[in-house]
Amino acid sequence: MLNRVRSAVAHLVSSGGAPPPRPKSPDLPRANSSPTADPPEAPRSPPAKAGRGKAAPEKTAETRASFSRPTFLQLSPGGLRRADDHAGRAVQSPPDTGRRLPWSTGYAEVINAGKSRHNEDQACCEVVYVEGRKNVSGATREPYGGQGLYFYYWGLFDGHAGGGAAEMASRLLHRHIREQLQGLVEILQDPSPPPLCLPSTPGTPGFSDPTHVVGPHSCSSSQKEVTHESLVVGAIENAFQFMDEQMAQEWHGHQVEGGCCALVVVYLLGKVYVANAGDSRAIIVRNNEIIPMSREFTPETERQRLQLLGFLKPELLGGEFTHLEFPRRVQPKELGQKILYRDQNMTGWAYKKIELEDLRFPLVCGEGKKARVMATIGVTRGLGDHNLKVYSSTLPIKPFLSCFPEVQVYDLTQYEHCPDDVLVLGTDGLWDVTSDDEVAATVDRVLSAYEPNDPSRYTALAQALVLGARGTPRDRGWRLPNNKLGSGDDISVFVIPLGGPGSYS
Amino acid sequence: MLNRVRSAVAHLVSSGGAPPPRPKSPDLPRANSSPTADPPEAPRSPPAKAGRGKAAPEKTAETRASFSRPTFLQLSPGGLRRADDHAGRAVQSPPDTGRRLPWSTGYAEVINAGKSRHNEDQACCEVVYVEGRKNVSGATREPYGGQGLYFYYWGLFDGHAGGGAAEMASRLLHRHIREQLQGLVEILQDPSPPPLCLPSTPGTPGFSDPTHVVGPHSCSSSQKEVTHESLVVGAIENAFQFMDEQMAQEWHGHQVEGGCCALVVVYLLGKVYVANAGDSRAIIVRNNEIIPMSREFTPETERQRLQLLGFLKPELLGGEFTHLEFPRRVQPKELGQKILYRDQNMTGWAYKKIELEDLRFPLVCGEGKKARVMATIGVTRGLGDHNLKVYSSTLPIKPFLSCFPEVQVYDLTQYEHCPDDVLVLGTDGLWDVTSDDEVAATVDRVLSAYEPNDPSRYTALAQALVLGARGTPRDRGWRLPNNKLGSGDDISVFVIPLGGPGSYS
Repeated sequence: MLNRVRSAVAHLVSSGGAPPPRPKSPDLPRANSSPTADPPEAPRSPPAKAGRGKAAPEKTAETRASFSRPTFLQLSPGGLRRADDHAGRAVQSPPDTGRRLPWSTGYAEVINAGKSRHNEDQACCEVVYVEGRKNVSGATREPYGGQGLYFYYWGLFDGHAGGGAAEMASRLLHRHIREQLQGLVEILQDPSPPPLCLPSTPGTPGFSDPTHVVGPHSCSSSQKEVTHESLVVGAIENAFQFMDEQMAQEWHGHQVEGGCCALVVVYLLGKVYVANAGDSRAIIVRNNEIIPMSREFTPETERQRLQLLGFLKPELLGGEFTHLEFPRRVQPKELGQKILYRDQNMTGWAYKKIELEDLRFPLVCGEGKKARVMATIGVTRGLGDHNLKVYSSTLPIKPFLSCFPEVQVYDLTQYEHCPDDVLVLGTDGLWDVTSDDEVAATVDRVLSAYEPNDPSRYTALAQALVLGARGTPRDRGWRLPNNKLGSGDDISVFVIPLGGPGSYS
Repeated sequence: MLNRVRSAVAHLVSSGGAPPPRPKSPDLPRANSSPTADPPEAPRSPPAKAGRGKAAPEKTAETRASFSRPTFLQLSPGGLRRADDHAGRAVQSPPDTGRRLPWSTGYAEVINAGKSRHNEDQACCEVVYVEGRKNVSGATREPYGGQGLYFYYWGLFDGHAGGGAAEMASRLLHRHIREQLQGLVEILQDPSPPPLCLPSTPGTPGFSDPTHVVGPHSCSSSQKEVTHESLVVGAIENAFQFMDEQMAQEWHGHQVEGGCCALVVVYLLGKVYVANAGDSRAIIVRNNEIIPMSREFTPETERQRLQLLGFLKPELLGGEFTHLEFPRRVQPKELGQKILYRDQNMTGWAYKKIELEDLRFPLVCGEGKKARVMATIGVTRGLGDHNLKVYSSTLPIKPFLSCFPEVQVYDLTQYEHCPDDVLVLGTDGLWDVTSDDEVAATVDRVLSAYEPNDPSRYTALAQALVLGARGTPRDRGWRLPNNKLGSGDDISVFVIPLGGPGSYS
């Protein structure tokens, strides 16, 4: 994530220590397509209070690594060194010889041009089995026949101010999603509407008897209908929050480094859920049409939320910032003049007389990729950043950041997809220099050069997208064919075929 | 506004007194199309602080009337009685014989079927002249040739819990807009970008010298470009706020009754600004295509804003409400069970264990037209309501309501409009029983029955829309041709031709 956090964050309170040793035998979750259940090592602490609970740090064998790449790349030590080489910027993809990713998903990545020591993007692609909750004796409840659920999962994590948060999220976020879905396994497989009320203790006698569930018709007359789909959305939202809370804990004695944007896709029971917190992006290219599947969350797009928070909780501004927006920094010599401003309720601009407190730094400033919250961070949603402070200050920035994703749902059964219909996920390294239309053109160009049933076509497409955004070394920089600068950021791309050779069962 | 505020608001703290006497000679602003300047009686107090200032109550001859209809209807005392007759529900329009509304605008209205004593909708249609600000000596600054600006103005105000707020807004909101635009007259007519900084005292020597304006190039390097359009948007936004603050003042010794939704259109310098605060709606029907020009603000559409406020400022909930949403009211006997909930960050639903404070009434509850904030009010933006309290409580609801409109801009010069292209404004009495598509079909049906240059066609269209939503008295109710109930609410409609016989100069 190029320039998303000023170099000032080197002053992060937490980043004083030497990097911990890399574990000798990495125990990352399996990254192949085998649909077996992960060992039950995901955090299981139920919320003490809905949405606010703290998951206790997990006692697994995992420790923080100083540098790693997704295990599905199957990199040898030499391959890892090449992936870490800023000069060559070799594009990395899973080997042709290995097991393919689920759905014949294509993936490619490249390291940045030197803006950070390692590639701070991370990725994960998994098939996850969700079994129903176990009761206290360890036996699984099986009221509806005991079938668990599989979900397919893709995640892109764009780290900043260190790679720790992105790496942790790539290892654990899907497990938090599994954890949130566990209590819903039977409900999601039951075609009747979700019960509004459930007995509190799973596994207690009577839970398996559907008549004991307080269903829609046993409650008072005025009530809202809740869909199965909205339960999955709620599960993903809460999983992001638990992941973020877990990062706030000490992690095996080490503070989690930095923060990350998270763009996650879950395929479950016929629907694709795209959850985005940050400035990565997902689009569907279907029959040459572009369907946006995410929105970016930046100081510009979230200005009013940020300003409202600063207005309602001025103590969060520490006397250093003003919640008002100005087109530029106000100068002391301008006191008493009038300047354009925007308050939290406004989308337009008006003039106001400059007063002393307007000389404070604006909470939100800058435009485009240079927009910042508290002059520091350029994304407003994501995971981690618990220790991010304003430069040369103890003022925390985290209260202004949201860990909640926006979730968009796409019903895969509503359209007959062809092998050229794809869902493209990319970190901002791709989108900074590539428009949606250019991506759609590359989709068309690359896929038409391969047989529809050639499973390697999606990897080739991901590579073409990464190469197209990186450019080639020329004139002292990485340049695109039009001689403009390519992206010097880490670039990571998933290409998920929606009607290709993948098996969706 | 049918059922938007429960009958409980009869308990409004402020509504104890007898209605004040109706003034003998109503002194409403002129509602014809004469483009002469209004007398300068609009509130002029500049904000003590940007966006927070209090405009002092205006010392005009206007007083609160107990019942009135828009003056452009030119109703005789007998006509006023017919307009006030719930049994006949005669549709009212400006007389054919009188002066037409600007742009040959069509208008029609009908009173409710008995839900309130009078028609609580109000309307205004004006041509307003904005002169530049006068300096202290009364002389107008004329740096750019001294030309003032005209804007065309249409306003629909849907009152609730009394007609006072709607009536006051229909008399004064356009004057607040004029007031906000006064300082911008020269800037809006100057093709160069608006200056970021202005000297504070208008009329001081040098103000008329453009080189004294602190322009974009005399400031620091990083600055945002602000458009003329966004200045007009800001002026409208602040005008709504000043109008709301003026309602908070005592008005000639009387408290302003109730609140109102406000839907306002301003045409200025080639652009149409549609500002909406409430649940009225504006659509453009252009070449049979529907272009939405507003969004409704209700407890459902603003749920997350309301919940966030309750979460950040729990004192506003008075220990009586919870900011969490539940699909229905939680019962004490369910304590310890799990229930579906949504927090302010969630769009999906999840289960939580029921705790004591979940037994409080939800801040937001109900669905569709029955959705309510604090079990009381069904709209979340608008003007007034300063004294609205929760039923049998002193807890104020106003902190959860926003007076700020959302402003959408439509550039009239970007498309060659034909006489059948119209902007339709309606209060919820229209939209509760009429879809956008049905309105578009009526536009097509009615306008095609008239010559394109017949200026009465837009009034005929407004009447057809009102009649179509009201229905006819049958089977103990007002019924539509499909035998469903028509709207029993007040219904008001403006039809503004975008390419018709009106002169836009």
